[in-house]
Amino acid sequence: MGKVVAARGASSPLGLHRVIEPLGVLPQAAWRLNPDPEIWPDEVRVDVERLNLDAASFRQLRESSHDDPDAIRARVLGIVAERGKMQNPVTGSGGMLTGVVSEAGPKSPLGLKPGDRIATLVSLSLTPLAITGGLDGWNGSSEQVPCHGHAILFGRSIAAVLPGDLPVPLSLAVMDVCGAPALTHRVVSRAARPVVAVLGAAGKSGSLSAAAARQAGASRVIGVVPHDREAAMLRTSGLADEVVIADATDPVGVSEAVRAAGGPADVTVVCVDVPGCEGGAILATADRGTVIFFSMATSFTAAALGAEGVAADVTMLVGNGYSAGHAELALNLVRSEPGVRHIFDMRTRDDT
Amino acid sequence: MGKVVAARGASSPLGLHRVIEPLGVLPQAAWRLNPDPEIWPDEVRVDVERLNLDAASFRQLRESSHDDPDAIRARVLGIVAERGKMQNPVTGSGGMLTGVVSEAGPKSPLGLKPGDRIATLVSLSLTPLAITGGLDGWNGSSEQVPCHGHAILFGRSIAAVLPGDLPVPLSLAVMDVCGAPALTHRVVSRAARPVVAVLGAAGKSGSLSAAAARQAGASRVIGVVPHDREAAMLRTSGLADEVVIADATDPVGVSEAVRAAGGPADVTVVCVDVPGCEGGAILATADRGTVIFFSMATSFTAAALGAEGVAADVTMLVGNGYSAGHAELALNLVRSEPGVRHIFDMRTRDDT
Repeated sequence: MGKVVAARGASSPLGLHRVIEPLGVLPQAAWRLNPDPEIWPDEVRVDVERLNLDAASFRQLRESSHDDPDAIRARVLGIVAERGKMQNPVTGSGGMLTGVVSEAGPKSPLGLKPGDRIATLVSLSLTPLAITGGLDGWNGSSEQVPCHGHAILFGRSIAAVLPGDLPVPLSLAVMDVCGAPALTHRVVSRAARPVVAVLGAAGKSGSLSAAAARQAGASRVIGVVPHDREAAMLRTSGLADEVVIADATDPVGVSEAVRAAGGPADVTVVCVDVPGCEGGAILATADRGTVIFFSMATSFTAAALGAEGVAADVTMLVGNGYSAGHAELALNLVRSEPGVRHIFDMRTRDDT
Repeated sequence: MGKVVAARGASSPLGLHRVIEPLGVLPQAAWRLNPDPEIWPDEVRVDVERLNLDAASFRQLRESSHDDPDAIRARVLGIVAERGKMQNPVTGSGGMLTGVVSEAGPKSPLGLKPGDRIATLVSLSLTPLAITGGLDGWNGSSEQVPCHGHAILFGRSIAAVLPGDLPVPLSLAVMDVCGAPALTHRVVSRAARPVVAVLGAAGKSGSLSAAAARQAGASRVIGVVPHDREAAMLRTSGLADEVVIADATDPVGVSEAVRAAGGPADVTVVCVDVPGCEGGAILATADRGTVIFFSMATSFTAAALGAEGVAADVTMLVGNGYSAGHAELALNLVRSEPGVRHIFDMRTRDDT
């Protein structure tokens, strides 16, 4: 294969050699990638078993398809065929996948070998992907999509071998959001026993973030949820000291609810995947406090101008999906916190 | 006026009482505000003299109007008439204004009195505004728009009396971007003599940020500019230790240029008002470093997924337009740094 590879030009650990258009941008920013199954020497090819669509993307697909399974399947197939990756053109977001390594190039630094069952920890929005077949195993009502096809990992991609002690769908769901608890842990542990509010605390990233906040030394964890059913789930989990019901898109409502529960928060973590949560998070946060935005539905301008508009001197962080050791931290929270496991089991069962 | 005010219902320091649609959201997120000149007791009415459009908004207006002055004027008038505020519906951003206080309500906490010449430090995107006349004094080629009309400040708005020792257009231009040097100063002064890269260092927010970085203890300031003309301007200013030319939207180009100039940067400040600068800023930043996004053209998902996609463990901050003392810090930089004054004079003269 050496000669063929040489004829194709050198590869880039960032995957620039897979970008078809526009040329020169990173794969995440590209409109179209080349999902050719033949790998460069520093790449890895994976036989895909399952896609885990990003929550914001899945919500958009469902809503724009009016919950019609055939329409949702056609949308996903169409996006992947056109773009060579599963990046929702409306939300810009992707998700992740699991599969089995079929070939590892001799210069790949990822330490993977054929037969390893792995999850990708880089977004689908930059992962070359081709789907074979018609997604017949997917009923369109869950963001976890059984799938046949192949995907490509670059030299600088990240993937984790799936742990043997946890079910695959659980590990996948945990790894998909593992950036949230890792960054929450880092921010909370640098503050002095802060009050932490988690918007969407009964969700996947929210429950992990609440558990991480407590473990990192929060003096109080306030969980904000949209309705009674989630409040009951969160109370059962025991992950929050206070559970309050508020519409995260109602700035005054959220702010008052958090204050009534012992706020304002020194650290507010936004894990609600709907647009319009910026104002409430900012108003619920104390002067010189920190807001961490993990929702892919966050608007940069709404956050920047929203804080300025109410003269809020708060630090606002873009939730980075990667930090060193993030997958292990999140998997350990699932292992050690029955409340987190409870919520993930409920969520995986419900497919919500 | 007491009776009339009572009949209108209570006011909110956040301006919720001025929101027409959708009800319940903050003024910044609203589609339409009520610019009624009659003030509530905690409000201030300002006779507007000049609008300073946000750079991203002005660029969009110019480009979509093909630089036709009549078309640009009509766009601004149309937006203000329809929305009751000057918020560009495409970019979501606004700008700021100067004017003279015409009435201060008895319960206003802003400390202003009729006759004060002020600049608003909250965005036009949430400031009730009505324009009289046809913007005839504006040729459409500058973001500074001579204007007649009135604007409303809420209880929690921020405004600054214009300093007597600086020309009004200069103060306005400085205050418009004063959040950038303030946050840069805070971040740099908390790090240990960091290397700082400023993308767009020959611009207004960029030059102030470069000056703030040096004042806050940066060991090296690397200024990144798009072409020779800006490089010359930045060299003349003396604000950067190294001046490099690179296209901020070319991730690999920016990253390599910053590295060649003494990087990677511990702190990267993005002051380039065009889309697609997230990847380059992330790649130019050292592991565990910080990226501060000030451009309103920043995409939240591009930043979040871009960092994850290249396994970059960097802290990413949403540039908050407000922090305590920000206007004074920026005005003092203009007073003390001839290089900043030079760039602002060039920029104000050029109207770029």
